[in-house]
Amino acid sequence: MSAPREALAGRRLRLGMVGGGQGGFIGAIHRYAARLDDEYELVAAALSSDAERALESGRALRLDPQRLYTDFRDMASREAARPDGIDVVSIVVPNHLHHAVASAFLEAGIHVMCDKPLTTTLKDGLRLRELAERHDCLFGLTHNYSGYPLVRAARELVEAGELGEIRIVQVEYAQDWLARPIEDSGDRQAAWRTDPALAGPAGCLGDIGSHAAHLAEYVTGMTPSEISADLSSLVAGRRLDDHVQMQLRYANGARGMLWASQVASGEENGLRLRVYGARASLRWQQETPNELWLSVQGEPARRLTRGMRGLPAAAGAASRLPPGHPEGFIEAFAQLYRDFAHDVRAHQAGQAGLAGARRVPGLDAGIRGLQLISAALASQRANAGWVALPR
Amino acid sequence: MSAPREALAGRRLRLGMVGGGQGGFIGAIHRYAARLDDEYELVAAALSSDAERALESGRALRLDPQRLYTDFRDMASREAARPDGIDVVSIVVPNHLHHAVASAFLEAGIHVMCDKPLTTTLKDGLRLRELAERHDCLFGLTHNYSGYPLVRAARELVEAGELGEIRIVQVEYAQDWLARPIEDSGDRQAAWRTDPALAGPAGCLGDIGSHAAHLAEYVTGMTPSEISADLSSLVAGRRLDDHVQMQLRYANGARGMLWASQVASGEENGLRLRVYGARASLRWQQETPNELWLSVQGEPARRLTRGMRGLPAAAGAASRLPPGHPEGFIEAFAQLYRDFAHDVRAHQAGQAGLAGARRVPGLDAGIRGLQLISAALASQRANAGWVALPR
Amino acid sequence: MSAPREALAGRRLRLGMVGGGQGGFIGAIHRYAARLDDEYELVAAALSSDAERALESGRALRLDPQRLYTDFRDMASREAARPDGIDVVSIVVPNHLHHAVASAFLEAGIHVMCDKPLTTTLKDGLRLRELAERHDCLFGLTHNYSGYPLVRAARELVEAGELGEIRIVQVEYAQDWLARPIEDSGDRQAAWRTDPALAGPAGCLGDIGSHAAHLAEYVTGMTPSEISADLSSLVAGRRLDDHVQMQLRYANGARGMLWASQVASGEENGLRLRVYGARASLRWQQETPNELWLSVQGEPARRLTRGMRGLPAAAGAASRLPPGHPEGFIEAFAQLYRDFAHDVRAHQAGQAGLAGARRVPGLDAGIRGLQLISAALASQRANAGWVALPR
Amino acid sequence: MSAPREALAGRRLRLGMVGGGQGGFIGAIHRYAARLDDEYELVAAALSSDAERALESGRALRLDPQRLYTDFRDMASREAARPDGIDVVSIVVPNHLHHAVASAFLEAGIHVMCDKPLTTTLKDGLRLRELAERHDCLFGLTHNYSGYPLVRAARELVEAGELGEIRIVQVEYAQDWLARPIEDSGDRQAAWRTDPALAGPAGCLGDIGSHAAHLAEYVTGMTPSEISADLSSLVAGRRLDDHVQMQLRYANGARGMLWASQVASGEENGLRLRVYGARASLRWQQETPNELWLSVQGEPARRLTRGMRGLPAAAGAASRLPPGHPEGFIEAFAQLYRDFAHDVRAHQAGQAGLAGARRVPGLDAGIRGLQLISAALASQRANAGWVALPR
Ligand SMILES: NC(=O)c1ccc[n+]([C@@H]2O[C@H](COP(=O)([O-])OP(=O)(O)OC[C@H]3O[C@@H](n4cnc5c(N)ncnc54)[C@H](O)[C@@H]3O)[C@@H](O)[C@H]2O)c1
Ligand SMILES: NC(=O)c1ccc[n+]([C@@H]2O[C@H](COP(=O)([O-])OP(=O)(O)OC[C@H]3O[C@@H](n4cnc5c(N)ncnc54)[C@H](O)[C@@H]3O)[C@@H](O)[C@H]2O)c1
Ligand SMILES: NC(=O)c1ccc[n+]([C@@H]2O[C@H](COP(=O)([O-])OP(=O)(O)OC[C@H]3O[C@@H](n4cnc5c(N)ncnc54)[C@H](O)[C@@H]3O)[C@@H](O)[C@H]2O)c1
Ligand SMILES: NC(=O)c1ccc[n+]([C@@H]2O[C@H](COP(=O)([O-])OP(=O)(O)OC[C@H]3O[C@@H](n4cnc5c(N)ncnc54)[C@H](O)[C@@H]3O)[C@@H](O)[C@H]2O)c1
Repeated sequence: MSAPREALAGRRLRLGMVGGGQGGFIGAIHRYAARLDDEYELVAAALSSDAERALESGRALRLDPQRLYTDFRDMASREAARPDGIDVVSIVVPNHLHHAVASAFLEAGIHVMCDKPLTTTLKDGLRLRELAERHDCLFGLTHNYSGYPLVRAARELVEAGELGEIRIVQVEYAQDWLARPIEDSGDRQAAWRTDPALAGPAGCLGDIGSHAAHLAEYVTGMTPSEISADLSSLVAGRRLDDHVQMQLRYANGARGMLWASQVASGEENGLRLRVYGARASLRWQQETPNELWLSVQGEPARRLTRGMRGLPAAAGAASRLPPGHPEGFIEAFAQLYRDFAHDVRAHQAGQAGLAGARRVPGLDAGIRGLQLISAALASQRANAGWVALPR
Repeated sequence: MSAPREALAGRRLRLGMVGGGQGGFIGAIHRYAARLDDEYELVAAALSSDAERALESGRALRLDPQRLYTDFRDMASREAARPDGIDVVSIVVPNHLHHAVASAFLEAGIHVMCDKPLTTTLKDGLRLRELAERHDCLFGLTHNYSGYPLVRAARELVEAGELGEIRIVQVEYAQDWLARPIEDSGDRQAAWRTDPALAGPAGCLGDIGSHAAHLAEYVTGMTPSEISADLSSLVAGRRLDDHVQMQLRYANGARGMLWASQVASGEENGLRLRVYGARASLRWQQETPNELWLSVQGEPARRLTRGMRGLPAAAGAASRLPPGHPEGFIEAFAQLYRDFAHDVRAHQAGQAGLAGARRVPGLDAGIRGLQLISAALASQRANAGWVALPR
Repeated sequence: MSAPREALAGRRLRLGMVGGGQGGFIGAIHRYAARLDDEYELVAAALSSDAERALESGRALRLDPQRLYTDFRDMASREAARPDGIDVVSIVVPNHLHHAVASAFLEAGIHVMCDKPLTTTLKDGLRLRELAERHDCLFGLTHNYSGYPLVRAARELVEAGELGEIRIVQVEYAQDWLARPIEDSGDRQAAWRTDPALAGPAGCLGDIGSHAAHLAEYVTGMTPSEISADLSSLVAGRRLDDHVQMQLRYANGARGMLWASQVASGEENGLRLRVYGARASLRWQQETPNELWLSVQGEPARRLTRGMRGLPAAAGAASRLPPGHPEGFIEAFAQLYRDFAHDVRAHQAGQAGLAGARRVPGLDAGIRGLQLISAALASQRANAGWVALPR
Repeated sequence: MSAPREALAGRRLRLGMVGGGQGGFIGAIHRYAARLDDEYELVAAALSSDAERALESGRALRLDPQRLYTDFRDMASREAARPDGIDVVSIVVPNHLHHAVASAFLEAGIHVMCDKPLTTTLKDGLRLRELAERHDCLFGLTHNYSGYPLVRAARELVEAGELGEIRIVQVEYAQDWLARPIEDSGDRQAAWRTDPALAGPAGCLGDIGSHAAHLAEYVTGMTPSEISADLSSLVAGRRLDDHVQMQLRYANGARGMLWASQVASGEENGLRLRVYGARASLRWQQETPNELWLSVQGEPARRLTRGMRGLPAAAGAASRLPPGHPEGFIEAFAQLYRDFAHDVRAHQAGQAGLAGARRVPGLDAGIRGLQLISAALASQRANAGWVALPR
């Protein structure tokens, strides 16, 4: 049972966090992101599976020791019981725990900001959607690349028909940090990501392939109707895929390719999208996110820059600086938090929060992501044959 | 029967050309290429299927009217009969004629420099190989991108093991000039390329997919062991594919993707290759051909430039200018002509000409290209299922 | 007289701000920067010269109304008197007020983080140095580009001798937002920047030329020994320079050029530095700040990326993300705040805080900047003749 | 006295060459350039100051031994006397000989294509102009960068007013091949270039500064009205400047900077031009010559590519390939030869040849170049004070 929550107007949202203790990666980014626009105040946390580390990490963050938990279920129930309990929880634990943690907080009536992939099975994902509906909670999924202003500009340009009918989608996410079997020598992030019990059945595919797929979907507004996928473990002995390539077909006849790899020597975070329409194409890559290329057939390619005049409104709304001053990963991540705060306020105020809902990827996007993973695994089992996705 | 040919030492090779009349595209490039290094003298030609245009084109080139032909068979036999007849013929006619023209000259004992794709059927390609062997003729195939110095550097770096075991090949060739159905409004180059009777059964695949495949093979030294291909005609009503995507598997377990499109709005001649090995990767694109990127995992990416010290020897040998002065398409094309001249001289001198043979792609490369096309068409018929390539 | 201040250990620094009200530019950036690393808590402010706007702006920031001031002197004395008064004040008002505001807070014993240029006259700058010393206050000057990790890497590479003896410095900062006389049509930022009474005697030179000069000095560790400067107002009727070019000579014989312009059509925030030594050169530009080019003569240029292994330690310390995830302007700005917090804590703890002092530009850098401005104005009066800088 | 020359119509121009023997640099490029468009036939030469090398070099080029000379004066008179004598001579000897060689051929009534800088003294340059007029000869000066299609496009865009009134010119040419004193260890090209007796009084300034100045002038149509120049020898002991920087002022109030260096470690052939007008700016660099950037204030930067539709006509006329297929240094050089051939034909046909004359830089450009050098040397003597250029 959750205590009645104070009105949000005139105050920051109270944020809790599960995961993200010392030595963890993405939790710290969520904290930067939540802090940047001053819409949240971190007040409670269960930061680690290790009790000692959880408390030590919380002290370093100057959190109230009363609100440092060593068990996330405990945290969910006690926070729900406080009149000044958290409004939102950030979930930044390994994949296999997303479902359990999210369920605990949804059941406690607390809005959820969860990292991807949504869960490790489609069934779990569908259950979370039910729970969120039942408890009237908002659910954000940090497909953070959709927070980049020029990704939003791209989406609007596609929507506005600037590209004409979409014909070709080329998306890829290439890294090299798993080019060697570092899971065998104690790298924490590598260890769980290559262990099916913790990462789920998809390795690279779930970890970054999911980002690539979401980016393509977010910008084009289209989900493939069928795919053919070839997953590999290019590092010998690895238990999950570290490299995935897919062919995509869309209902309108468009074609596409998706490539994700964590063993592509020399690549850092090469998330790149190209979308070609009958009239023009768009090109964006996250390593240089402040430029977006629009190439109309027969005209000079145009370099759109973040913050410049004349961009679609959504890009401006997601931007903090004048053009020429680079924004980056943290700002894009913060954008999802800013949008989510807006949604949560609108929700409490009894508004539909539609605009925001449209911006922060949520359960539907997460479920489509899981469907893609399922289909890819099915295709893999069928020697990369075509597998249809649910409509 | 061919007349005994004068010794080549101390003189230019005598070159003939079939195709390449006024209004034609690649014939003029072959002429630039043959001229650049002063190793050839164009002395005879059958420049067009249209007799009037053939003669008019020849006059504009200041050729001896006696050696302007309106029929390529006539040209082959008459040139073979002259003591000062041509040493080499360049074949720059639409695909469906490659076989007939090449046969005529091979049978006349004349060396052939033919444009790609080798022929429109695998059978024809195999026949040309027989003929060339029978008549002891050299045969060059202008997969001209292999003439770029940095492509040669790439090949040598791979051979030297700089990349480690190859894991991933990403190759693409994207254009947009067929983004609209310009074959319907009189564009000559488009007209034959979209007509199966003239282009053969593969459209974009044969036209530029063949270049992409060759580039990947040339640099990596590996041919896929099986492929899965999805060919499309993204412009409605087009009779041949204008877009092709493939998944590649190699015998050593490596994976790859090939994309070729002539309807990718905003692309000019985007031939791009990336090869990733266990240790490092290479990146090259022909629109900026004077740089080659070598990225060793964990080290800063290195920008190798054409002409710089320390490059593999083959790159220097294919280069004409100091670093920082750009070379381009014509120079790369000329390189094949220069190498072929070297081979022809070595051949006449009774040497094997191995070094040269190794540089200029020839019948074997052409036949592998045709095998790839056959396999892709078979895969296409099998809904993009995997098809093995001959070893 | 200031009240004894609480120990800093275990709590955030309490921050005040003068300037930065609604409609202002850089104040908001300072707030992002102070917030990012959770080292500061904004608790008091005099946000605008307009009382109404000052209060309204403070309410929007959810500040305690008790600590919203309409007069900065009032704020200085009242905050100094509180036991929970501010530890640090950020000064983000137009140039002509820097001296008065900084003086007020220094006299109240409050550490200062001031934006550039330090003051509008050299005399005022020197006075601030005296005051800071007398009151034992730290003083940071937000030459924020020095907060970029790769700028710090560049500095360390130079220090380590990687470039060899420095020979050539090329630095520029080009913008175009003043390409038209927008000060005449109500643009606030333009209005004061083109008014000598508010901006001081240097327009573009003080505004962004000062950043370019600081960047060059910060990386090379060298200040020019003499300069020749040509200042212009390329927009007719403008009262201050909007374009400045300089030749630089250094004591070791090195040469350089500095260019700053606010009327360079098509430029956004083109701050670019190139430093050439006898062995190698460095290149960095703030619009793509996550890469730094190191080009050793005769070797391939190397692209160093933020966050990568093997960079100088200072770069890592100023970095928050893995390589390939872009950081930007806000993170670099935040770095100065993070370093300043470190310095303030060390200062209170009675440590010299040297490491930090070395990172955050301060009064000495500010004074050298003013000396450069003075010399440039003197050179301008002497028809761009050479003018020596104080050693 | 020259023999009457055969009509040019229907045949190639007969070309002679002075300089360019084995081991020489630019002579070989002139030969590529003359050959590419099939407008010239090299038939006579005095290739080296060393008689043996002159003959050996000529044999390697398969020239008629009768027309291999060991003395350029001899060549001029004997070629002039032949009915089939050369129409044009290319002069590719070190600077100190340009005047003597050019004079010999002009006096023989032979058109001249001479490399830069025109001569080593202004007086000599003026004399050549007189001679050329007296003997009714055409004179081309190979400021070859003006042969790039996109440099021509840039010029036309400026002329058409696309940039608005020009405000700022930034031009530079940076190399590093003289970063060490290689003239002391036998490098031929370095040896004469650093010897005032052979190179003339300007080192880097004459060698590449002249190219930078010409490029700026060619594109903007403006010559500086006054300059201030700082020349240095950054390599100890070097007798001529290896680094030059200049400030430029133009009659219309525009400002500019010119930088040329041969000791800028890491630079290959970094010739770069940026021109800013009141409305827009242009950016071009020769290392990637197939793109030209046009940035209109407030609009996305546009990447114009060589060969694309919609470029100014002059660019198309200077282009040989479709867009996306790179052209380079040789093609640009060839363009001057092609234009010069056009001029020579028009001249013989009694036409003014104005269009061509406008394209190939000639004596006027050469003389302006020498005036700039004189002014720079004068400025240098006056401690980089301003020196006016003749109008
Ligand atoms: N959006 C993105 O770009 C992005 C990037 C990286 C990771 N992720 C996702 O974020 C999640 C975390 O990844 P990571 O790289 O930060 O992993 P990590 O291993 O670095 O951090 C996981 C953290 O969870 C904590 N934890 C584990 N079990 C816990 C429990 N029962 N209670 C409390 N804390 C517990 C660990 O102690 C650790 O601090 C994953 O789902 C991953 O897919 C997303
Ligand atoms: N290597 C490359 O990069 C490249 C580029 C373009 C074309 N190609 C290949 O070159 C060939 C020609 O292509 P294109 O674009 O120049 O085509 P095109 O249509 O422009 O030119 C073909 C020429 O062949 C002539 N021709 C046709 N039938 C003839 C006959 N019976 N006798 C003599 N001449 C005849 C035509 O008159 C025309 O001049 C094709 O095989 C194509 O695949 C290769
Ligand atoms: N480091 C950088 O990159 C950078 C960038 C921009 C500006 N700046 C510097 O920051 C300073 C501010 O520039 P800006 O562009 O933000 O100007 P601005 O005009 O946008 O903002 C100035 C603010 O100061 C307030 N102000 C003026 N007088 C005041 C007073 N007496 N008391 C309280 N507030 C007062 C104004 O109301 C306004 O909110 C300048 O010195 C400028 O040079 C630095
Ligand atoms: N346009 C350009 O981009 C460019 C580039 C390089 C050089 N150049 C110019 O070209 C000229 C030659 O430069 P280079 O680098 O080729 O020099 P180089 O030293 O490589 O070649 C000079 C050649 O001139 C020959 N020579 C000298 N004296 C001679 C004589 N009396 N008779 C006949 N031959 C003689 C030498 O034997 C040698 O072959 C210079 O004026 C230089 O400024 C222009």
